Amino acid sequence: MTPDEFRRYGHEVVDWLADYFAHPEQHAVLPKVEPGFLAPQLPPSAPEQGEPMEAILADFTRLIVPGLTHWNHPRFFAYFSVTGSPPGVLAEMLAAGLNINHMVWKSGPSATELEQVTTGWLRQWLGLPEEFFGMIHDTASNSTLHGLAAAREQADPAARTHGVARGLVLYTSEQAHSSVEKSAIAIGLGQRHVRKIAVDECFRLRPDALEETIRADLAQGLRPCCVVATVGATSTTSVDPVPAVADIAQRYGLWLHVDAAYGGAAGLVPEYAHYLAGCARADSLVMNPHKWMGTPVDLSVLFTRRPDVLRRAFALVPEYLRTAEDARALNYMDYSLPLGRRFRALKLWFVMRSYGREGIVAKVRAHIAWAQNLARRIAAHPDYEVCAPTPMSLVCFRRKGTDEDNRALLDRINATGEAFLSHTVLNGRFVLRLAIGNYATTEADVERCWELIQRV
Amino acid sequence: MTPDEFRRYGHEVVDWLADYFAHPEQHAVLPKVEPGFLAPQLPPSAPEQGEPMEAILADFTRLIVPGLTHWNHPRFFAYFSVTGSPPGVLAEMLAAGLNINHMVWKSGPSATELEQVTTGWLRQWLGLPEEFFGMIHDTASNSTLHGLAAAREQADPAARTHGVARGLVLYTSEQAHSSVEKSAIAIGLGQRHVRKIAVDECFRLRPDALEETIRADLAQGLRPCCVVATVGATSTTSVDPVPAVADIAQRYGLWLHVDAAYGGAAGLVPEYAHYLAGCARADSLVMNPHKWMGTPVDLSVLFTRRPDVLRRAFALVPEYLRTAEDARALNYMDYSLPLGRRFRALKLWFVMRSYGREGIVAKVRAHIAWAQNLARRIAAHPDYEVCAPTPMSLVCFRRKGTDEDNRALLDRINATGEAFLSHTVLNGRFVLRLAIGNYATTEADVERCWELIQRV
Repeated sequence: MTPDEFRRYGHEVVDWLADYFAHPEQHAVLPKVEPGFLAPQLPPSAPEQGEPMEAILADFTRLIVPGLTHWNHPRFFAYFSVTGSPPGVLAEMLAAGLNINHMVWKSGPSATELEQVTTGWLRQWLGLPEEFFGMIHDTASNSTLHGLAAAREQADPAARTHGVARGLVLYTSEQAHSSVEKSAIAIGLGQRHVRKIAVDECFRLRPDALEETIRADLAQGLRPCCVVATVGATSTTSVDPVPAVADIAQRYGLWLHVDAAYGGAAGLVPEYAHYLAGCARADSLVMNPHKWMGTPVDLSVLFTRRPDVLRRAFALVPEYLRTAEDARALNYMDYSLPLGRRFRALKLWFVMRSYGREGIVAKVRAHIAWAQNLARRIAAHPDYEVCAPTPMSLVCFRRKGTDEDNRALLDRINATGEAFLSHTVLNGRFVLRLAIGNYATTEADVERCWELIQRV
Repeated sequence: MTPDEFRRYGHEVVDWLADYFAHPEQHAVLPKVEPGFLAPQLPPSAPEQGEPMEAILADFTRLIVPGLTHWNHPRFFAYFSVTGSPPGVLAEMLAAGLNINHMVWKSGPSATELEQVTTGWLRQWLGLPEEFFGMIHDTASNSTLHGLAAAREQADPAARTHGVARGLVLYTSEQAHSSVEKSAIAIGLGQRHVRKIAVDECFRLRPDALEETIRADLAQGLRPCCVVATVGATSTTSVDPVPAVADIAQRYGLWLHVDAAYGGAAGLVPEYAHYLAGCARADSLVMNPHKWMGTPVDLSVLFTRRPDVLRRAFALVPEYLRTAEDARALNYMDYSLPLGRRFRALKLWFVMRSYGREGIVAKVRAHIAWAQNLARRIAAHPDYEVCAPTPMSLVCFRRKGTDEDNRALLDRINATGEAFLSHTVLNGRFVLRLAIGNYATTEADVERCWELIQRV
């Protein structure tokens, strides 16, 4: 494809995207397709000769788009609703064309340094101390893997050379994200050494239960090494009592990792900054701008006050990656399992500048207000009940009745294609989740969804 | 930003990219900047109020671009040269705007199924058996981590629950990529349980040395669990004798992982298909379309004939991610540490269709021919010597003289901004690496670089 052909098709694609952003309602949020729908519509093998871009783009709109779940739709209320904002998309276009891989400073000086600058800006917004080092990963799962690997390194420095010792124990709440347990399995701690601490009636980790469990483990000769607290847990957005957890971590010499992947953005709003209380005492913390901060997936930031430990866990420099600048430049590969690094900081920079702190705060604040307003209306309705507090922009609710009634209700809502909600189980009961987080969502979209819920 | 504003700036960005593709020579391949150059030119904090996109784009061209190492420049010959091809960039634009996260089938049916289809197409191109399951990761490092975690699961099924047993041993050549050792450390095997097997005079793993080491380890009561062979090693693109390694893996019950991240693309060319001999016997194999197959970073494909083992290593389904389709749809999260998944298959689809197999083969074949031609000329020159065979598109050479002479030569070449080469160390000597792999590169670029080498 010549540069001029790229120009022509690039303009076409931009027009398609602009129309997509302007008229999301033309797409069902959740597509009406069945597993296995796509392969029969595509050739069994890739083509021998190249095909014209017209044909590829036509197939994209004809075959791919109708089978997509539209995460960028304003009535996508499932999981955590996210936003690939237009400024972030512009940055991704540039990053794709530049195709930088800043594994070392020399292979992408601007990319390396913009990652330092933007994660530093974000650190300030989150009120974290200046000594926190920031780096970008693809997903919170990988950020967490790196945080926990640093915790392992801190507790068991011989693990790097000799292999992991048995009996290192990690603590988190029973509401923690599955990536915590997956990471613990991956780094070799073993699932039975992941303690899922009980929560209180608001789904927050109970510090008393945490301390009791640590003591029992110590009495058994096990080695407590890490505790993971969550700010904005996936099921309910509950906020663990990080200050109390930090006290316990300090008392027992545990690495404190905070999962603020979703909830960190709520902490940007001054009246909710207390959600981040205690986070400045974390050893590592993950926050995902690709969730509630407008950047397209994927972009997760890992902060740590102990980059030296993270580096000890991961540094390994083959000759072919040594550079003359090694002594005075930051080579992100030294802190990371993945060697390759896409230029993700560019979209963070575009988004932070384009919205400004106030622009992002206004979005997050409004989403929380709409969610709390909706929660009040649901609670006031005789046929429905709210099943968890609404500290952020997620409403957990159910229709009074059986789990099967609620499962059927969810299916009927989602089958309309007008909105997409997801579910969880709280206290053994099936609960619907309505998560507000897309920047194109308006309060009218929330209202329309509430009407839909009552109607279907 | 309104859809119409996005349209306007999107067209601007497309024009900028088209000019970038048309006139790469306007940029120095390697920028003339020093560590720490960027931060002083940017505000110490992110803005409170949003800024106009004009200002952001102007800063992008004024501050960011001049500090970039231009991986998409036709005279980028360092590391492994890669290509963010225009068709791939178009797909990335669409993926960014759609912002899909297909952690489960339901959250992105087309994205899940297109990943199955495109990795299936790639599997056919690589001549791998139909039972091979394909999935996309960001980097080869992460693909390798997953391959090795499956190997661990196979050898030590108790590891998932109880933690890793000490004494599992992994084998690879002393020329293997650093990500193999990093992954082994991450999954808790320990660096001292990574055996770096000696290579022959062509930098290929020596099967006799491998078998001898396995026997010695068995005699000591250790547990050999995995061997990693490389097709296209980073320093020299050497190809390990995979059939012989597969025999040994079979004899001793080892998981065979093949790192064909770079070299897999060479195997697409019929006359070099023998580089992939034996790969069909692998338990897992990684191949990176973002290296030599025109897709923008990041896109690494992990294949495995044992998806059941990979799934046992990673599956963990929290209630909030269960779907009605779980029994009959593929949920990629079950095979992966990261939960989040960007819609990477779209660019693989665009690139495979836009170039076709013949288009990609023509590029790879030409790159290899130019490299081998250059190697012959270097070998014929009285002042230079070629330091390794040239099975693919990488030439390893040095000027006859001291390491310091060669280091200075490399610095002088790179300081011109006309080309970027990297280095390695072979048999204790400093060696220059000239890697051809960008789709915009012509033989004239290679010729110009060779003149530059002789001139500076």
